[in-house]
Amino acid sequence: MRIVHFGASGTVGQPVAAELSKRHEVLRVGRTSGEHHADVTDAASVARLFETIGNVEAIVCTTGRTHFGPLASMTAEMLNLGLTDKVLGQANAVLAGMRYLSDGGSITLTSGVLSEDFIVRGSAAAMANGALEAFVGSVAIELPRGLRINIVNPGLLEEDAEALGHLFPGFQPVSGPRVALAYCKSVEGAQTGKVYRVR
Amino acid sequence: MRIVHFGASGTVGQPVAAELSKRHEVLRVGRTSGEHHADVTDAASVARLFETIGNVEAIVCTTGRTHFGPLASMTAEMLNLGLTDKVLGQANAVLAGMRYLSDGGSITLTSGVLSEDFIVRGSAAAMANGALEAFVGSVAIELPRGLRINIVNPGLLEEDAEALGHLFPGFQPVSGPRVALAYCKSVEGAQTGKVYRVR
Repeated sequence: MRIVHFGASGTVGQPVAAELSKRHEVLRVGRTSGEHHADVTDAASVARLFETIGNVEAIVCTTGRTHFGPLASMTAEMLNLGLTDKVLGQANAVLAGMRYLSDGGSITLTSGVLSEDFIVRGSAAAMANGALEAFVGSVAIELPRGLRINIVNPGLLEEDAEALGHLFPGFQPVSGPRVALAYCKSVEGAQTGKVYRVR
Repeated sequence: MRIVHFGASGTVGQPVAAELSKRHEVLRVGRTSGEHHADVTDAASVARLFETIGNVEAIVCTTGRTHFGPLASMTAEMLNLGLTDKVLGQANAVLAGMRYLSDGGSITLTSGVLSEDFIVRGSAAAMANGALEAFVGSVAIELPRGLRINIVNPGLLEEDAEALGHLFPGFQPVSGPRVALAYCKSVEGAQTGKVYRVR
C-alpha cells in the first residue's frame, strides 16, 4: 500500500513507520523532518501536501502536543493547545485526506491512555484524547466509499517511561513495536470505528 | 444551597433551573438573559462574575453550541466552534469557579448523547462531548477540598424532538424534567467523576 504518515519522527511514529515500511510504501511527513513537509495544524498546508502526493491507500496520524500541568494553574489557553494541535491537527488530516483515499482505504489516528485512565496534571491530555475518540466513532459511520477510520490509544510508551514515568504511577509501559501492531491492524485489517487500546 | 447556573435559559437549562429552584437559591447566568450576565467563553467575563457573586455551593453549566453538518463539507473552523464554545466555555466555568466553591461543593457540566451514539452530521458534536466527558473524569481526581465534578449526558430532548428528531432516527426522546434529575443527583448527592447518561 501507499501510506501517508503524519508525525513519523515522533516517539510513537518511529516504530509505527518502521513496522509499516516492512510491507508498504510509507510517505513520511513532518513539520520539518521526513521526505514531505506539512504543518498538520494548518488546513491549507495539509491540502497542499495531498495535492502534491496524490492518492493513497491509508493515512496514519501520530501527531499532537498537549499541555501537562496541575489543574490549579490550568488555563483555557493551555487546554486549547491540545485542541488546536492534537485534535484539529489530526482532524485536518481526515478532512483534507479522505478525498485522496482509494475506495476502502483507511485513516488511523492517535489518542492516549489519559482519555480514560486519569493522572494528576493530565486534564488537558484527557480532553484532547476524549475529543478524538468520539470524533472517530462518529466519522466512521459517515465516511463514503467503504473508507474506514480507527484510533489507537497507546499506554505510556517504554521509550517515554524514564522521562515521564513519575507522572504515571502504576502504569505498565508498552513497547513501541507493540503499539505499532495496532496501527497495522487498522491499516491492513477491515475494522472501522474502533478504539485500539494498547496496554 | 447557593447554586450558580450558566445557561439557565436554554432547552436543557430551563427544566434544570426549575427543579433546582424548588430547594435551592439558583443564580441564573446568561450571555444576555438571567439575573447575572457573563460570556462563558470569555475567561475574564467568568472571573468577573464570580468576583461579583462570591462563594457558592454548586456550579451548573448547561451551555454550549456545536456545528451540525455533513462530514463531506466539515471544516476545522466548524469543529472548532464546539471546542471553543461548548468545551472551553464549560472549562472556563470550572477553572474560574472552583476557587469560589465551598468545601465539598460540586460542578456539573453537560455533554450529550452524540459522544457515543453517533448520527450522520454529528461529528463536531461528538468531538465536543467526548472532550468534556474525559476532561471531567480527569478533573475529578485532581480537585482539592472534597470538591466534586460530574457531567450529564442527556439524550435527545422531547422539547427538541420536533425540530431535530429527523436527525436522530430511532432515538428515544427524554423529557427535560427527567434530565433535570441527573443534575440533582450530581448537586445534591456525593458522587464525583461520573457521566450520567439520561436515555
